[in-house]
Amino acid sequence: MKLLLVLLLLLSNVSWARGTGDLGIIIERATGSVKVVENSGNTVLGTITGLGDLSHASAVYSRDARYAFVFGRDGGLTKIDVLSKTLVNRTIQSGNSIGGAISQDGKLVAVSNYKPGGVKIFDTETLDLVADIPATYGEGNLLSKVIGLVDAPDQIFVFSLWDAGETWVVDMKDVKNPVITKFRDIGRNPYDALITPDGRYYIAGLFGEDGMALLDLWNLDKGVKRILPGYGKGQKKLPVYKMPHLEGWAIAGNYAFVPAVGLHEVLVINTLDWTEAGRIPVHGQPVFVMARPDGRHVWVNFAVPNNDTIQVIDSQSLKLVKQLQPGKGVLHMEFEPRGEEVWLSVRDKNKIQVYNTTDFSVKAELYADTPSGIFFTSRAHRIGL
Amino acid sequence: MKLLLVLLLLLSNVSWARGTGDLGIIIERATGSVKVVENSGNTVLGTITGLGDLSHASAVYSRDARYAFVFGRDGGLTKIDVLSKTLVNRTIQSGNSIGGAISQDGKLVAVSNYKPGGVKIFDTETLDLVADIPATYGEGNLLSKVIGLVDAPDQIFVFSLWDAGETWVVDMKDVKNPVITKFRDIGRNPYDALITPDGRYYIAGLFGEDGMALLDLWNLDKGVKRILPGYGKGQKKLPVYKMPHLEGWAIAGNYAFVPAVGLHEVLVINTLDWTEAGRIPVHGQPVFVMARPDGRHVWVNFAVPNNDTIQVIDSQSLKLVKQLQPGKGVLHMEFEPRGEEVWLSVRDKNKIQVYNTTDFSVKAELYADTPSGIFFTSRAHRIGL
Repeated sequence: MKLLLVLLLLLSNVSWARGTGDLGIIIERATGSVKVVENSGNTVLGTITGLGDLSHASAVYSRDARYAFVFGRDGGLTKIDVLSKTLVNRTIQSGNSIGGAISQDGKLVAVSNYKPGGVKIFDTETLDLVADIPATYGEGNLLSKVIGLVDAPDQIFVFSLWDAGETWVVDMKDVKNPVITKFRDIGRNPYDALITPDGRYYIAGLFGEDGMALLDLWNLDKGVKRILPGYGKGQKKLPVYKMPHLEGWAIAGNYAFVPAVGLHEVLVINTLDWTEAGRIPVHGQPVFVMARPDGRHVWVNFAVPNNDTIQVIDSQSLKLVKQLQPGKGVLHMEFEPRGEEVWLSVRDKNKIQVYNTTDFSVKAELYADTPSGIFFTSRAHRIGL
Repeated sequence: MKLLLVLLLLLSNVSWARGTGDLGIIIERATGSVKVVENSGNTVLGTITGLGDLSHASAVYSRDARYAFVFGRDGGLTKIDVLSKTLVNRTIQSGNSIGGAISQDGKLVAVSNYKPGGVKIFDTETLDLVADIPATYGEGNLLSKVIGLVDAPDQIFVFSLWDAGETWVVDMKDVKNPVITKFRDIGRNPYDALITPDGRYYIAGLFGEDGMALLDLWNLDKGVKRILPGYGKGQKKLPVYKMPHLEGWAIAGNYAFVPAVGLHEVLVINTLDWTEAGRIPVHGQPVFVMARPDGRHVWVNFAVPNNDTIQVIDSQSLKLVKQLQPGKGVLHMEFEPRGEEVWLSVRDKNKIQVYNTTDFSVKAELYADTPSGIFFTSRAHRIGL
């Protein structure tokens, strides 16, 4: 009997054995759980529960594409195994957090915190604390909320201080001695940031003034430069229903496609000189503006009251080529790694839709409880994701 | 006793269960085998034998990052399981072949053949023949050698005909009815080709005349355009010890770094207008010119008699920043997906060296029998690889 149990256990383990390159997770906001999915046959493989408050949650992957690190709003950092579909480890590392990043070598996971303001860095193997970087400013006794945390090449993390208007570059090559380079006066209230797919340019959006703050990580001595003086002007014209996500910037060829703040427009930016190259009128206030992996199309979702719609822009003609209406609460999109299909979470319908990106047909619909973020394991191999 | 055997078998299976995102293979030319490796701890996990003639072999990966399809010179197409480290299936599909590609959706693997000249397309699950595309030309009774086969977005394969001077675009959306678009008179004797990382531009090198043939896959109606009129001129000046591999082009920002044919130079090309932007003198005739994933450095290896050396170019200053001498027969390089380390095969020393790409220190040395190509599973998620 005992032997039979052992056998059954082993059998259940054997069923794990599969490639992990086509796996992913879907955040279920309301239930503090994630669905484990695969994008070859487009199916749900299982559910992992007990991840706490997952509103605004995001995730990064280990370099072997087996483990996800999920950053919850409640300060929870949870390590899950998408192969065995189990929760491996969990730590409440702060009172309120807003995202994280994984180091180039995959050994460190960093979390940016609102409360207490700062960044904590953990060992990805054990979730032991490796470095604690309080976001001090002013006389040194104030702590700033931290936003826009990303990883960069050479074991670097970059993030910005909402209250202080600073960007910090942290070199973690020596984990015992983080080397911090601080850039002050980057602009008032940076609210989010992004890093270009090559890991070279870090760009922070400013809530407190117009324009954005650009840092060239290859030329730190040149300091932070203000770009796109008109960016953010929309704030004064229309109420902003949802701050756009800067991580969602689409880079296609030399153009970046960017959600305009508070306007029904997608901005086109020339990345050669970081000037505005055009504006495309769209259906609502854009939230995520994401390029298909080949850069030929750019998919856009919108803030309420237009969050039932998706628009697709051709990056060559800058014209709309398609409009879809998946339903209320389209919160996130994730392309399969080579771009043939895209997954959309439709929160209010409790479902995921998978579209073919060439003919826009629906290839699959999956059930998920109030789904938001979708994250595929191919992110493990991308800089800044 | 039988139960014990079953148990042992199951146990051995359980030991497979791991993430496949950090796996890879190394081609062992002389022994017709591949080493299965992992790049988190930099170790060899096992050897798979029986793959036939592996001179000039290359490989692509299934979308779940579990199976590799290895293209041998003897026309052998071998499917191996890098998770269980076993040979799954093998077919001798022609008399002489030169590489292959996997479709965007991962369901089709295509092989380009010298003899008989053409492309055969197989089901990745079974290796059953799905389509046979003979490279007919002239009166239709001649068959051309096929080179430069790549995959492109929208289920497309692209390749060129050495004897005919043609480029063919094959749309496989309907596997029963491949739609072939032929471009004639692209130039004499295309010898190799590449596709840009976004899958937009296909560029064939010409052996029979100077210049290269560029096809914009987003604008097929514009036809093939001749670019870089000086490219190939080197042939007249120096004997060419080894034709450079075009697949190795490095794209960093708006520059492409390209091996000059027969010259001790790396060409810099402006990809905005496909004109020459500069030339960098190097140690020998370059073979592979490869960008670190962040594009900041470009690594170059060389043809005999300089194939014991590696040079590293800074893509911003266009200056050499490092020279390494791993030993005779440095045949191939493969960067880890986020670029922190690079693996070099040093054939004549029967070893693989793993370098840190920031401080150029050697992090590991592994034994392999006359190693050549190195292919990591992260290629599964890239267009054209």
